[in-house]
Amino acid sequence: MVAHSAAASTPLSVPSSSSSRSTIPSTIPNYNVAPPNLTTLPNNSLFDTWRPRAHILPPTGQIGDPCMHYTDPSTGLFHVGWLYNGAGIAGATTADLAMYQDLNPNGSQAIVPGGKNDPVGVFDGSVIPEGIDGLPTLLYTSVSYLPIHWSIPYTRGSETQSLAVTNASSAGRNFTKLPQGPVIPSPPFAANVTAFRDPYVFQSPHLDAILPSGPTNLSTAPWYTVISGGIHNAGPTQFLYRQHDPDFQYWEYLGQWWSEPTNSTWGNGTWAGRWGFNFETGNVFALDAEGYNPSGEIFGTLGTEGSDLPIIPQVTSIHDQLWVAGNVSMTDSDSVTFTPSMAGFLDWGFSSYAASGKVLPSSSQPSTDSGAPDRFISFVWLTGDLYQQAEAFPTDQQNWTGSLLLPRELTVLAIDNVVDNALSREAETSWRVSSTDAASGTVTLRTLGISIARETKSKLFSGSGSTSTERDRTLTSAGVTPFSRSPESKFFVLSARISFPSSARDSALQSGFQILSSDEEHTSIYYQFSNESIVVDRSKTSAASRTTEGIDSATEAGKLRLFDLQKDGEDVLESLDLTIVVDNSILEVYANGRFALSTWVRSWYANSTEIRFVHNGVGEATFENVTVSEGLYDAWPDRK
Amino acid sequence: MVAHSAAASTPLSVPSSSSSRSTIPSTIPNYNVAPPNLTTLPNNSLFDTWRPRAHILPPTGQIGDPCMHYTDPSTGLFHVGWLYNGAGIAGATTADLAMYQDLNPNGSQAIVPGGKNDPVGVFDGSVIPEGIDGLPTLLYTSVSYLPIHWSIPYTRGSETQSLAVTNASSAGRNFTKLPQGPVIPSPPFAANVTAFRDPYVFQSPHLDAILPSGPTNLSTAPWYTVISGGIHNAGPTQFLYRQHDPDFQYWEYLGQWWSEPTNSTWGNGTWAGRWGFNFETGNVFALDAEGYNPSGEIFGTLGTEGSDLPIIPQVTSIHDQLWVAGNVSMTDSDSVTFTPSMAGFLDWGFSSYAASGKVLPSSSQPSTDSGAPDRFISFVWLTGDLYQQAEAFPTDQQNWTGSLLLPRELTVLAIDNVVDNALSREAETSWRVSSTDAASGTVTLRTLGISIARETKSKLFSGSGSTSTERDRTLTSAGVTPFSRSPESKFFVLSARISFPSSARDSALQSGFQILSSDEEHTSIYYQFSNESIVVDRSKTSAASRTTEGIDSATEAGKLRLFDLQKDGEDVLESLDLTIVVDNSILEVYANGRFALSTWVRSWYANSTEIRFVHNGVGEATFENVTVSEGLYDAWPDRK
Repeated sequence: MVAHSAAASTPLSVPSSSSSRSTIPSTIPNYNVAPPNLTTLPNNSLFDTWRPRAHILPPTGQIGDPCMHYTDPSTGLFHVGWLYNGAGIAGATTADLAMYQDLNPNGSQAIVPGGKNDPVGVFDGSVIPEGIDGLPTLLYTSVSYLPIHWSIPYTRGSETQSLAVTNASSAGRNFTKLPQGPVIPSPPFAANVTAFRDPYVFQSPHLDAILPSGPTNLSTAPWYTVISGGIHNAGPTQFLYRQHDPDFQYWEYLGQWWSEPTNSTWGNGTWAGRWGFNFETGNVFALDAEGYNPSGEIFGTLGTEGSDLPIIPQVTSIHDQLWVAGNVSMTDSDSVTFTPSMAGFLDWGFSSYAASGKVLPSSSQPSTDSGAPDRFISFVWLTGDLYQQAEAFPTDQQNWTGSLLLPRELTVLAIDNVVDNALSREAETSWRVSSTDAASGTVTLRTLGISIARETKSKLFSGSGSTSTERDRTLTSAGVTPFSRSPESKFFVLSARISFPSSARDSALQSGFQILSSDEEHTSIYYQFSNESIVVDRSKTSAASRTTEGIDSATEAGKLRLFDLQKDGEDVLESLDLTIVVDNSILEVYANGRFALSTWVRSWYANSTEIRFVHNGVGEATFENVTVSEGLYDAWPDRK
Repeated sequence: MVAHSAAASTPLSVPSSSSSRSTIPSTIPNYNVAPPNLTTLPNNSLFDTWRPRAHILPPTGQIGDPCMHYTDPSTGLFHVGWLYNGAGIAGATTADLAMYQDLNPNGSQAIVPGGKNDPVGVFDGSVIPEGIDGLPTLLYTSVSYLPIHWSIPYTRGSETQSLAVTNASSAGRNFTKLPQGPVIPSPPFAANVTAFRDPYVFQSPHLDAILPSGPTNLSTAPWYTVISGGIHNAGPTQFLYRQHDPDFQYWEYLGQWWSEPTNSTWGNGTWAGRWGFNFETGNVFALDAEGYNPSGEIFGTLGTEGSDLPIIPQVTSIHDQLWVAGNVSMTDSDSVTFTPSMAGFLDWGFSSYAASGKVLPSSSQPSTDSGAPDRFISFVWLTGDLYQQAEAFPTDQQNWTGSLLLPRELTVLAIDNVVDNALSREAETSWRVSSTDAASGTVTLRTLGISIARETKSKLFSGSGSTSTERDRTLTSAGVTPFSRSPESKFFVLSARISFPSSARDSALQSGFQILSSDEEHTSIYYQFSNESIVVDRSKTSAASRTTEGIDSATEAGKLRLFDLQKDGEDVLESLDLTIVVDNSILEVYANGRFALSTWVRSWYANSTEIRFVHNGVGEATFENVTVSEGLYDAWPDRK
């Protein structure tokens, strides 16, 4: 759960969802002239302006952290969930990771706060698909006191962990809270926590093997849960627990299996940002090259709450959505410890956060149809209003806030034939050297593979509109070159390969695309060698940002090292493979199977649809396989 | 807290307190003719019928467990509290242990359920007089789920322990709950408890000395708390905790320092009854011959929940109000253990239960006036309706239910010059041999001394009415002999010494008194050698018991061994020293400084005031110092 300021965390701040898409706005904005201050427009008048088609978001209102996902063992459908309107968890089902059906009318919640355990809040939970009585069982954070924030003293008892169950007839439309107190009623004794939330359940042969034997009365391998948080004046941490009984009533505390010093970084902070002051939404899973493998390499995703200085009470000015891989071992004091081996960003966007994923078994409906193996699918939240800190965002005018990003398959990605040099050997990065070929002077690197889920990607590229391919070209001079055929809409996916000569390294070269372009607006997406970054320049993205304070125009960037590769006996610079999804205002940039950066691109003008090649005239860039598939698809065919 | 059946435990069952004493009943019962079925009378019509004068009870409504007592450090007044109307804790202050002032108008509560921690109940709590910020601080059982009973599965989270504080301006009239969760949020991990309530705070140099060092950041010796309860299929137990921080936020769990097997007994069960299935209202303190001494012998009082067979779910058919003494030691596994050395009944009455006491320092207002040393004063509850299980008690007609018994001073009582024989040497009893004089063939025994608090007793004997003394006499033949002067009312205290020849032992001798006597009614109180018991025969106590099922007429009894004493070189039988308090319907029988039995004696006829000597014609009994002081006193002068 992303805990914001005191006000923002209370149910009182829930945006109204009384109006809906079907409400006919009293005025329709004119997208052919400059916008007014959008907060002056009537409520709901901007509902369609930036509404995405292919993304997961509720019919109206505010989406928060993704959570509560699972595959229903009885239907094979995958359930994706999210915090909704600051008051509980709603969800939808999918048979193909592309189209979704709301579980409840108007996208209302499957569980809401207001019980004895959670009088003021239901924060993130995760599901044991075959839990109590074999039914999908939600372990969630039940909230009794607010505000909660790492920058202020923690009110004891604010966050506990409770259970709720859905049965065959409710099938996820409703999770019924157990009529009892929390199953994890407190943080560890006398721990002065900064947070104690977002329990994430998982199974782990690694932990089974390394830990002293646990409960003997379970019919399956024990479940574990990490609970995210931190310790005041010590640092962020994950608390680890193990299932103790078949009814999931008791969870044995196994210690703070992973702690980092307050506001420290992984390495120099370049590749994985900050550990911050508090961990949130920690997931733990294991991967191999194909997908989910419980005996594979241990990975996690987590949100970290950081801050610029000076710290402002109840403000988290930096949210990093990270991933980590590592190993577990037993310490001398007989407690289990997780030690990171590499870490990176699951998504580099400022607004990308609170990722939560789930094992998607090969037996699920989507995987049965696609033939996919067991996978781990991660959903990242894209906050619509900078974590409720955007000044004067036209929330009521839009009547929806935020979205989830496209489902992502995570794997262990191998990068072969990498030249064994300082670039590949850098320590404490988002990759590790997994093998060395001394004869050829190369190494194989491994890192987290991040791709749009195959079914989703396939559907994006077979969009409802036309598909066109630009001719290959090499740019050497500064300027922009419009595509021969640009999309007619703001719904498309663009893929391309850009290659650079080895001389490009450390140069001032910048090259890429402008999208959503017109005379008035454009968004630049380019690779910049000077700091090995993919940059999304939004300074000209939206005419609305010039009239409306809440329309952010800050530049986004993420680091991607293009390695030196040995190819046919020669050292060449790894090329840049881009997949750029534009779903109206949502931009997702994927690169080289291991990079993602997502953000909002809220262009205003109807004709801001042009795509352009862009180059800054330094060195050269060769563009190949530049394809645009237009239209995307409607992820919510059942919504009116 | 006495947890009754499901229905009885819910706030829904709270008797109405909307009418009050000042309500004028529409009819006045005629106490000169036989009563009707009393449940057919108008509400409130029996308010005065059996109302006591000198006892502690609320203006109207139901009194429950005594608790929340303390001496206010700033006023020196002693505060006595009690569960009220099944919904929180009310209380009163006293400067002399005789007269009381309600803390709140109409005797309303200082703390009520309904908060986040205690949505359905506030059970017993105890007070750290100088707690948080030096203020009286209540640690109480906050209740979230009902029913709770040792005979049914325990709903997790039903009982937690929370804090509330009273400040200088509210001075006990209101205890403000801390705006946070419980400070003891759960029983020990995975303990399948039968109960987890009634935290009793105390300090203990014994524990300080024996335990591994605890917190180092406290300005005073640490406080401890026992929490009463049990473990399903194991037995009753006390959970021990130690204060961990100056703010009383954390309490370190020290283990189940005292456990007994399910439904076992102390010795053969003769002297201390049953440990039962669940412990309640456990107090821990230390005594010497004068009174409270933290370095003295460790004592406790406790209620035990027992049952006849077969067990009826949610019914506790036996409530024993016991005391225990014992020693603490460290076990091999480095946990502290309490081992009983002797145990007995604090009060033998069926309706006497849930005792809760408190240190009364010599600096308190009552003790300053009386010159008393530090004392431990215990208050016993006398349920008015057999724990809400009395069939058809005229609750609405009476409009008050139950009372506390008179405050009792507890000491270590020495019994000197006891002949060293099988009677004194019996093992696992309510006394212990503390020293042996081989030369004289005598031993000194020690046991718990139980006396009416000195100020209270003094006030009783200086009652508002006359005092008279019967001439000494020896009875040898069967029959009753009316007092030369009986009281005119049902408010009096009777004291007497009865001596028996040694030949009385093991004989069929019964001798004592009849009180509240007339042609229609009488209550017999006598010593019966055949089973060393003081018997209260209520079979003829009340004409109302013949018309109204709820007026109990069962015989009460308690064991008191009259030892063989060596006196002037001869063995004599210890005489029986009786103090009998009759406060209208409340009878308290004290004997030999170590015995108490209290019960209801609800005589109906106005003229049932006669007192009679009674003897069964076996052997002889000599009565001396037979004195009656009539009138008692009004403990509530401020009530209208």
